[in-house]
Amino acid sequence: MPNTAPSLRFVIVGGVAAGASAAARARRLDERASIAVLERGPDVSFANCGLPYFIGGEIRQRDALSVQTPQTLKALLNLDVRPSTEAVAIDRPNHRVQVRDLAGGTTSWMPYDRLLLAPGAVPVRPSLPGIDDPRILTLRSLGDMDRIKAAATSAAHVTVVGAGFIGLEMAEQLVRLGKNVTLIELADQVLPPLDRPMTQLIADELRRHRIDLRLSDRVVSFAATADTLVCHLASGTTLSTQLVILAIGVRPDTALARAAGLALSERGHLRVNDHLQTNDPHIYAAGDAIETTDLVTGTPSAVALGGPANRQGRHVADRIFRPAHTPPFPGVLGTAIVRVFNVAAGLTGWSEKRLRAAGRPFRTVTVNDNHHAGYFPGAKPLQLKLLWDPADGRVLGAQVSGLAGVDKRLDVLATALTGRLTIDDLAQLELAYAPPFGAAKDIVNLAGFAACNARDGLVTLVDALPADPAVQILDVRPPPLVQSHPLPVPHALNIPLGALRGRLGELDRARPVVTVCALGKSAYFAARILAQNGFQVTALAGGIRAHFDPLSPAKLPVP
Amino acid sequence: MPNTAPSLRFVIVGGVAAGASAAARARRLDERASIAVLERGPDVSFANCGLPYFIGGEIRQRDALSVQTPQTLKALLNLDVRPSTEAVAIDRPNHRVQVRDLAGGTTSWMPYDRLLLAPGAVPVRPSLPGIDDPRILTLRSLGDMDRIKAAATSAAHVTVVGAGFIGLEMAEQLVRLGKNVTLIELADQVLPPLDRPMTQLIADELRRHRIDLRLSDRVVSFAATADTLVCHLASGTTLSTQLVILAIGVRPDTALARAAGLALSERGHLRVNDHLQTNDPHIYAAGDAIETTDLVTGTPSAVALGGPANRQGRHVADRIFRPAHTPPFPGVLGTAIVRVFNVAAGLTGWSEKRLRAAGRPFRTVTVNDNHHAGYFPGAKPLQLKLLWDPADGRVLGAQVSGLAGVDKRLDVLATALTGRLTIDDLAQLELAYAPPFGAAKDIVNLAGFAACNARDGLVTLVDALPADPAVQILDVRPPPLVQSHPLPVPHALNIPLGALRGRLGELDRARPVVTVCALGKSAYFAARILAQNGFQVTALAGGIRAHFDPLSPAKLPVP
Ligand SMILES: Cc1cc2nc3c(=O)[nH]c(=O)nc-3n(C[C@H](O)[C@H](O)[C@H](O)COP(=O)(O)OP(=O)(O)OC[C@H]3O[C@@H](n4cnc5c(N)ncnc54)[C@H](O)[C@@H]3O)c2cc1C
Ligand SMILES: Cc1cc2nc3c(=O)[nH]c(=O)nc-3n(C[C@H](O)[C@H](O)[C@H](O)COP(=O)(O)OP(=O)(O)OC[C@H]3O[C@@H](n4cnc5c(N)ncnc54)[C@H](O)[C@@H]3O)c2cc1C
Ligand SMILES: CC(C)(COP(=O)(O)OP(=O)(O)OC[C@H]1O[C@@H](n2cnc3c(N)ncnc32)[C@H](O)[C@@H]1OP(=O)(O)O)[C@@H](O)C(=O)NCCC(=O)NCCS
Ligand SMILES: CC(C)(COP(=O)(O)OP(=O)(O)OC[C@H]1O[C@@H](n2cnc3c(N)ncnc32)[C@H](O)[C@@H]1OP(=O)(O)O)[C@@H](O)C(=O)NCCC(=O)NCCS
Repeated sequence: MPNTAPSLRFVIVGGVAAGASAAARARRLDERASIAVLERGPDVSFANCGLPYFIGGEIRQRDALSVQTPQTLKALLNLDVRPSTEAVAIDRPNHRVQVRDLAGGTTSWMPYDRLLLAPGAVPVRPSLPGIDDPRILTLRSLGDMDRIKAAATSAAHVTVVGAGFIGLEMAEQLVRLGKNVTLIELADQVLPPLDRPMTQLIADELRRHRIDLRLSDRVVSFAATADTLVCHLASGTTLSTQLVILAIGVRPDTALARAAGLALSERGHLRVNDHLQTNDPHIYAAGDAIETTDLVTGTPSAVALGGPANRQGRHVADRIFRPAHTPPFPGVLGTAIVRVFNVAAGLTGWSEKRLRAAGRPFRTVTVNDNHHAGYFPGAKPLQLKLLWDPADGRVLGAQVSGLAGVDKRLDVLATALTGRLTIDDLAQLELAYAPPFGAAKDIVNLAGFAACNARDGLVTLVDALPADPAVQILDVRPPPLVQSHPLPVPHALNIPLGALRGRLGELDRARPVVTVCALGKSAYFAARILAQNGFQVTALAGGIRAHFDPLSPAKLPVP
Repeated sequence: MPNTAPSLRFVIVGGVAAGASAAARARRLDERASIAVLERGPDVSFANCGLPYFIGGEIRQRDALSVQTPQTLKALLNLDVRPSTEAVAIDRPNHRVQVRDLAGGTTSWMPYDRLLLAPGAVPVRPSLPGIDDPRILTLRSLGDMDRIKAAATSAAHVTVVGAGFIGLEMAEQLVRLGKNVTLIELADQVLPPLDRPMTQLIADELRRHRIDLRLSDRVVSFAATADTLVCHLASGTTLSTQLVILAIGVRPDTALARAAGLALSERGHLRVNDHLQTNDPHIYAAGDAIETTDLVTGTPSAVALGGPANRQGRHVADRIFRPAHTPPFPGVLGTAIVRVFNVAAGLTGWSEKRLRAAGRPFRTVTVNDNHHAGYFPGAKPLQLKLLWDPADGRVLGAQVSGLAGVDKRLDVLATALTGRLTIDDLAQLELAYAPPFGAAKDIVNLAGFAACNARDGLVTLVDALPADPAVQILDVRPPPLVQSHPLPVPHALNIPLGALRGRLGELDRARPVVTVCALGKSAYFAARILAQNGFQVTALAGGIRAHFDPLSPAKLPVP
């Protein structure tokens, strides 16, 4: 007869990504454990990431967002899931949590052997004049979603504040609903985690869909009139709108942990060791509320994303129920992606701005290519920025934007970061190639080539055209392109790449040259010719992308 | 004044993938080198991989297949490219190649400092009775392509021999042209490099498009009549057809190398060291004609694919022109993919059959899931088979088939192989997730989970339902599915997963149990319940896939 006494009392605070994942895994590891999931909200185990798409109607069935319910979790996994139940205090010495039943209003104590805090994060709501207007909403739960969907029905104009991942998804979905949308972003770019040039495609796509994009601006106050809400912006502009969606970030929901004296980071995230254990060995933490380590550098890092939350929750169950077999949690990369209409962009690992801010040495290249063989119909343009450590060539991060295959390259690069691959490894990566799927040299290989070329001094890249009039600007594009899309500088000399070797005499050997083309490849070829002919030469990385039409299949310039 | 005397005479035999890549890179590394490319055929630098798609009309412009021409290679890279020119002998002691101008018929000697052999491979043409009929064609060059395209015009029925990558592409494209197609394959499966269960989706898709698929059969002779060609098959069947495409593999085109006394493998591939140098240090080799090392095991391996050929060619140029800066060629994985109508399949690294044949220890799991979050519209089913080394958990290979995202997972797994990642690493891989692109737990993560679960003894997987009547077969699918798609065995007991804990009494504790579901997940959940309740239990891996409809969005069974 199997032993049926509970092996361990496992209490989980938070019943969505990290919490529900921990509970599910715990049950598979231990049939006898007593597993309770406390969730303040009315719903558990729902797909937060799908919320914008139900608002916009792309996801049609609301119940598709409920991955599991308390009932299915009981039936399948024998979990004691308690929605509308808040953990209000932790009595650490006595290993018990104080629990409030939000429906009945009663409070009781629940003992635990192990406690998991998976409280997630809450949208930031800045204390601005007028912020309490009921037409200013945030999005985190199914309830928030219903409120926004209802409010959007009668709104002709909606203002989205914040052009991060959720703000962009909301802007897109609101356009889908036929709304006029203004999108306000404090930074001078959309998608602040990325480097600015890699967000250009997204910004263009927003504008192409008539989204009124206001960069380098912010709301300073709201004023309510009878039927509109007026947003006053820092730039002095005012904006009349019917609905405001605030999407300016989240903060960890760690008041309970703080009150219990658990160690928090400056930004309020729970501090955990590499087994996701807090400073109280009986209390674990996972998901948006924690700070873990960065996989690339080993420094502290807080990543508020669904994948890490799910795997961290599962990890905690492993750690509690089979500690001897559980390797340390490896840390996070911050791999993220967003789709905006026809384009996508994302990153993995470190960006240039983050490396600069941390004062870490790095080098970088940006390359352009098609998402699959250019000769096969439907090839779409793709741009990839790679960052690596000059000391050993190890990849530090990457960003990708384009019309197709963005997710694939990010995933390859995230895997490369996990495997600590170098730019030499990327150059030799053997990816799947048949014409509908890739190219004999994938853009990831090209990025590896270009990075090795830069490292090895075969080419010196510059990011902008020089202001110094002493530098000769050599445009190697074919003359028709030069005419239709002239360089935004005077005095550029046009010698098409194919004629360059015969026309070197037109250049002044005594003065430096910068070579320029559309996408960066011909400029590199030209720079190689000039360098070996005694010129002091640099090449404009990534090209001027002047005739780059993201909506038609890319054709790399035949120089 | 720069020095303009040639630095080195570099002669290249073969002007397509490996040869042209080496020439192009060599020029970028050295403006002064004399670089000659000898090509027997009339065309250089063409996209072999696109040939089937021009035949089928999916690629419309023939000149899209000419990536470069001798003229553009001259203009851009100052290369001396000689089409219709064959290297007929190598005088190794005197460092010279004998060259025949196939148009003029003249022969001359060309000196080299370094020679690259990139002769590629030729389609296998078995010596069967009747094989010389002009209606029996192979596909390797633009000329072959034109011949097949012309011959197909008047053919109502075409027979493709060989269901490997090229045979499948041809079969698909011929259907696109409205032909009746018979596809004959010696093995008992399509795509012989993959393990059989992973090719089922492709086989079904071929049949769904009315391709007459004949597995475990082969042509033994051809007989010509006035307007048809009769194929006699080993099975005794005969087949009347108008055109035969032979796609039964390639052999390295190394007669020239053999005559020159260079070291070849048993199968005729050029043997090279890890700098792609033959046993003559002045002679390098690259592409389909060589045997290099397997990246996973370090054993000899010949991979005839475009990506490796391009990168090997480039590597040889690096090795010759900047040897001090060139790391060893890392070896090959054999990452390959094919699209067949709406489905795709491919592999990277080692298959089960190859591991078995080599007597190498391995373990394996197969998992099923959606290609992106199931709650987001358009989710398509995907199947992934993972193989790993039981000694250290290192991934040895993977196969993927499905309707979308197959290439992405293969590329992630190829990168994982390059980084020598383990199944634990796959479980924690942080891939890009937003609903249109992935899932919080990608199928690659699931494969990692399932592999770790198998390794750690949380579940014992079986590949087939047991024949032994003493074993209890427990079907945990919901009753409606059991009724619509009954198990192909008698005496199965149906207890839906959600009711299992309450109905354990219906099972006999003295006899072993195998749990069964649709896709493998519920059977695993059920096995965990039974194992912890004292049962001796195994789970059917990958499920019975009985109600698996590859053409409708996958919905994992809600048990
Ligand atoms: C609109 C939106 C879109 C998103 N899109 C993506 C995406 O595309 N990709 C991606 O990777 N991630 C996305 N995310 C982020 C992802 O949803 C989160 O990273 C993930 O849900 C975090 O999981 P968690 O378990 O830490 O927190 P949550 O999922 O927020 O769950 C925490 C739960 O704990 C409960 N709780 C808190 N305190 C208590 C308490 N004291 N007592 C009881 N219960 C408590 C909360 O009510 C909450 O339900 C998105 C998020 C949102 C809101
Ligand atoms: C129909 C088809 C589809 C394919 N699809 C794919 C795919 O989807 N993905 C993929 O990765 N790969 C694919 N391949 C394989 C890929 O094309 C080859 O791996 C690649 O072309 C090999 O490059 P190579 O330079 O070694 O040989 P080749 O490209 O064959 O070039 C060798 C050249 O050398 C010439 N030559 C030989 N001997 C001499 C001599 N003595 N003198 C002068 N010239 C000589 C030959 O005429 C030939 O043109 C496909 C191949 C074919 C035929
Ligand atoms: C769904 C949820 C309750 C977790 O439940 P879960 O049972 O762990 O998750 P899944 O249904 O994905 O199943 C995963 C399990 O099945 C196994 N599995 C999945 N497919 C399998 C297959 N084909 N064969 C064998 N095993 C399989 C996995 O190994 C894993 O088991 P393990 O953890 O014991 O290794 C939780 O993740 C959740 O609430 N998610 C929604 C909220 C959320 O994630 N929000 C943020 C993103 S939108
Ligand atoms: C095309 C071919 C002649 C090679 O020429 P190539 O100039 O080396 O190749 P590409 O045009 O792809 O250019 C690659 C070069 O441009 C560079 N490059 C590409 N895009 C770049 C960008 N956006 N910025 C900077 N550099 C870039 C790469 O680094 C590489 O240079 P490197 O080798 O010096 O590092 C040869 O591959 C070929 O003949 N291919 C067709 C046949 C074939 O491959 N068949 C099998 C598959 S179908």
